[in-house]
Amino acid sequence: MLTTIPSLSDIKRAHQRISGYITQTPVITSNNIDEIAGCNLYFKCENFQKVGAFKMRGASNAIFSYRPEERVNGFACHSSGNHGQAVSLASKLAGSKAYIIMPNNSSKVKVAAVKGYGAEVILCEPNDKSRVETCAQIMEETGATLVHPYDDYDIIAGQATACKELLEEIDNLDAIITPVGGGGLAAGTALSAHYIEPNLDFYIGEPTEVDDAYKSIKAGKIIPNTSTNTIADGLKTTIGEKNFEILKEHAKDVFTVTEQEIIDAMKLIWERMKIVIEPSSAVAFASILKNRKVFEEKNVGVIITGGNVDLTKLPF
Amino acid sequence: MLTTIPSLSDIKRAHQRISGYITQTPVITSNNIDEIAGCNLYFKCENFQKVGAFKMRGASNAIFSYRPEERVNGFACHSSGNHGQAVSLASKLAGSKAYIIMPNNSSKVKVAAVKGYGAEVILCEPNDKSRVETCAQIMEETGATLVHPYDDYDIIAGQATACKELLEEIDNLDAIITPVGGGGLAAGTALSAHYIEPNLDFYIGEPTEVDDAYKSIKAGKIIPNTSTNTIADGLKTTIGEKNFEILKEHAKDVFTVTEQEIIDAMKLIWERMKIVIEPSSAVAFASILKNRKVFEEKNVGVIITGGNVDLTKLPF
Repeated sequence: MLTTIPSLSDIKRAHQRISGYITQTPVITSNNIDEIAGCNLYFKCENFQKVGAFKMRGASNAIFSYRPEERVNGFACHSSGNHGQAVSLASKLAGSKAYIIMPNNSSKVKVAAVKGYGAEVILCEPNDKSRVETCAQIMEETGATLVHPYDDYDIIAGQATACKELLEEIDNLDAIITPVGGGGLAAGTALSAHYIEPNLDFYIGEPTEVDDAYKSIKAGKIIPNTSTNTIADGLKTTIGEKNFEILKEHAKDVFTVTEQEIIDAMKLIWERMKIVIEPSSAVAFASILKNRKVFEEKNVGVIITGGNVDLTKLPF
Repeated sequence: MLTTIPSLSDIKRAHQRISGYITQTPVITSNNIDEIAGCNLYFKCENFQKVGAFKMRGASNAIFSYRPEERVNGFACHSSGNHGQAVSLASKLAGSKAYIIMPNNSSKVKVAAVKGYGAEVILCEPNDKSRVETCAQIMEETGATLVHPYDDYDIIAGQATACKELLEEIDNLDAIITPVGGGGLAAGTALSAHYIEPNLDFYIGEPTEVDDAYKSIKAGKIIPNTSTNTIADGLKTTIGEKNFEILKEHAKDVFTVTEQEIIDAMKLIWERMKIVIEPSSAVAFASILKNRKVFEEKNVGVIITGGNVDLTKLPF
């Protein structure tokens, strides 16, 4: 397991390790969207990734980093979202059991999705204390190993492979932007960009409602979110420590966008590009639309984080 | 202009003629969907086509089949849907004017889309008589040439290019299925399949609510729809004469599906494949789900017709 910031070799090893378990997702473009944005956008479509989100990269890397004899007691995590599905599927592929702790108000669809990958679902009270305690108890009882959703160098190295693929396919990017929640994808992208294209500008987009990364990077220390009132449910988490160390070094700027800007950007992508993306994915694109001058006529990579949305509860 | 059923050479010429004006759309697959369907599906994604639908192929072929001096008075059609947008964009690319006759209850979004391609929109009463009369009057006044949406050999040859691309990319198909409305895409697909892979089975899917193709092929003559109560708004039209002649020869079977089956199939594609498809596109997939034994373990091509939907009026 990695104990320091992943090097380029670590990221390459991660990519090799997971390549049989993930999809090499397509990079897609749209003249129509480029005209609207005033720049050339290259969307790395992790909504087409297994389990519908980039999380499969980090979870597979973390789980397959363990030797087979270390995997016998299975893996655990607390997640009501994409990370839980990713740990479930990656565990299944590794021949291990997965224990996913989910709040007891999780939608039936989400619980069914996790169970569909063969994981055991343990319901807890819908608060942080219960999640953490229940997870610790399950690990104690089963000997399962925790797979942290973001504050973990193996997770970061796994998420870094999306940007690596993007840069291997598109060689003329001026900038790249991702949204930030806990910071696994953002930190991984920052590292891949830094190692592979050192002159490329790396930016972060974040909902104004949960602007902990923005505040933390300005302050030079982690300032946690005090509320989580955003539609971008993948971005509610406060940035992790390992993630923060990487991002404060490599992020050229952090842009914040309102809820309406996120919804408008999401609708535009669905309408014009005919792809289903989750609100978190729209945050990066919304940041580009809001900061036209920064990106004007540039070639910009955008990581589309995922496409898991409840189609019966769309915001438009 | 073609005056007989398009030959393979005609389809090849059409493809060459339009190649600079259309997108070579991707063929995508999904393990998840294959498991559900019990066969291997290859989706030809015309939702990613210019104007968001396969109609761009036929319209470009029809319009660019005219010599430049024949294009000076522009082109006309009556359409509230994808064909209107396709004629608008293809006319613009040809340097010609387009006159699109639309019912006066068309949504603002649709009118704006057509105007966005530089076409002149002429509103008529929302009935067939007014559409046809208004269109005739505009043609009389302007000298514009009609671009028929389906009952036309150049349109059929243009739509045939989607299947041609699919068969050039995927060489082991056992069957192919399209939905049918007027029959431009269905007839074109039937011809390409027949010429390029004669052993391939060609099927049609159709909403039970507008099952004119089903009834017509059984009866050996065109039986028009008497009502048009389907969510698949691209399929309300009764099959055209030229289209019927081709389909009765080449369609191995016609499957009909209920409105709920269409909606369920559409939702499944959005959820699992993360792509936006219109209800008409879901009809073919719904037909596969309903007739598992016919397609069991086969390699099946499915033409996704388009992705233009009103996101504020989804059926789920």
